[in-house]
Amino acid sequence: MSLLRLNITMSLDGYVAGPNQSLENPLGVGGMRLHEWALPLAAWRKPHGLEGGEVNASTPVVEGHLSNIGAVLMGRNMFGPHRGPWSDHPWDGWWGENPPFHTPVFVLTHYPRPPLAMRGGTTFHFVTEGIASALDQATSAAAGKDILLAGGAAVAQQYLAARAVGEVNLAVVPLFLRGGERLFDNLGATDLGLEQVRVIEAPGVTHLTYRLL
Amino acid sequence: MSLLRLNITMSLDGYVAGPNQSLENPLGVGGMRLHEWALPLAAWRKPHGLEGGEVNASTPVVEGHLSNIGAVLMGRNMFGPHRGPWSDHPWDGWWGENPPFHTPVFVLTHYPRPPLAMRGGTTFHFVTEGIASALDQATSAAAGKDILLAGGAAVAQQYLAARAVGEVNLAVVPLFLRGGERLFDNLGATDLGLEQVRVIEAPGVTHLTYRLL
Repeated sequence: MSLLRLNITMSLDGYVAGPNQSLENPLGVGGMRLHEWALPLAAWRKPHGLEGGEVNASTPVVEGHLSNIGAVLMGRNMFGPHRGPWSDHPWDGWWGENPPFHTPVFVLTHYPRPPLAMRGGTTFHFVTEGIASALDQATSAAAGKDILLAGGAAVAQQYLAARAVGEVNLAVVPLFLRGGERLFDNLGATDLGLEQVRVIEAPGVTHLTYRLL
Repeated sequence: MSLLRLNITMSLDGYVAGPNQSLENPLGVGGMRLHEWALPLAAWRKPHGLEGGEVNASTPVVEGHLSNIGAVLMGRNMFGPHRGPWSDHPWDGWWGENPPFHTPVFVLTHYPRPPLAMRGGTTFHFVTEGIASALDQATSAAAGKDILLAGGAAVAQQYLAARAVGEVNLAVVPLFLRGGERLFDNLGATDLGLEQVRVIEAPGVTHLTYRLL
């Protein structure tokens, strides 16, 4: 059975992106500061095709997040900065020719588009039939491995409210963004039980893992 | 120099009290669940005049929170459920005849009231001149010891926005309250730097300590 695992970095005041997302500021104003803990890590650089990097207490956490993942789910606003219908020369993602996913990636959007095959095993599939269909397709593609729910906030909230998420891996960074996309809003009318599984302190970040009950 | 230390328990989605605070639900609907990690502890029970209790990884954290405190600051909504002017038979706090503070407590309110001396060294002083005056009075009373900023959210936000808080001790519990009083809102226009100091995993709670830069 595939587990849907939300892996995301959050500011201490609860934001996973800053305000005013754009081509210049993919994660909103100040949002790139969320990921400063990860960028120097060898464990982060390797799937991005980069050599070298640091090893610290975050290393096994990042390696664990990437292991046993057979498919990825994300929202269209995480895939790119544009809104509305795709243009004639559509955006191919933030990640260059060889994206770091190396699995099928299912992008939730309101606008149909043919699949987009990249180098390194990543193919973006654009799903217009909603979160349940995207999860079904990701589950088939994952073939027994787990599914990474990569964000952003809106998609994470929809899967949380639908009680489809099995595990939440939060990287909490010592930062107040004071605005932007808040992760834990719109969680629906139903109480969601959480169990604290694991806590790891690392330079500039705390890794919290919860199981959804 | 007295350090202003914010000690507070927060749900994973950022709330320090649930919605609809009242006499029946002092911490709002569901808000008492925030403190289930603390109530069984001997370290919590002792200052409340209760014997027995458990010892676990939260014990040294709670003992540390209570040590070297010479005065307490809190908002009027934390002191009691009533709003508006004090009545002829005013509320004397949630904590009975012998409150757990055992120091002067400065309660921020818009309505003047004479000081209220309780047993065990706690005297409630009602401050109508705003947060700077309350901090000045607490600093004098603390006589070199630190000052506990006990909450609630509105008062914590005002002292954070004023850059007066030196340390934040957050107890994060595996709970979605999905509404109520959010701690880290209204933090003002100025960027607030944070440094991650310490992380402690304990049963049903994670203790995060940050220094304000």
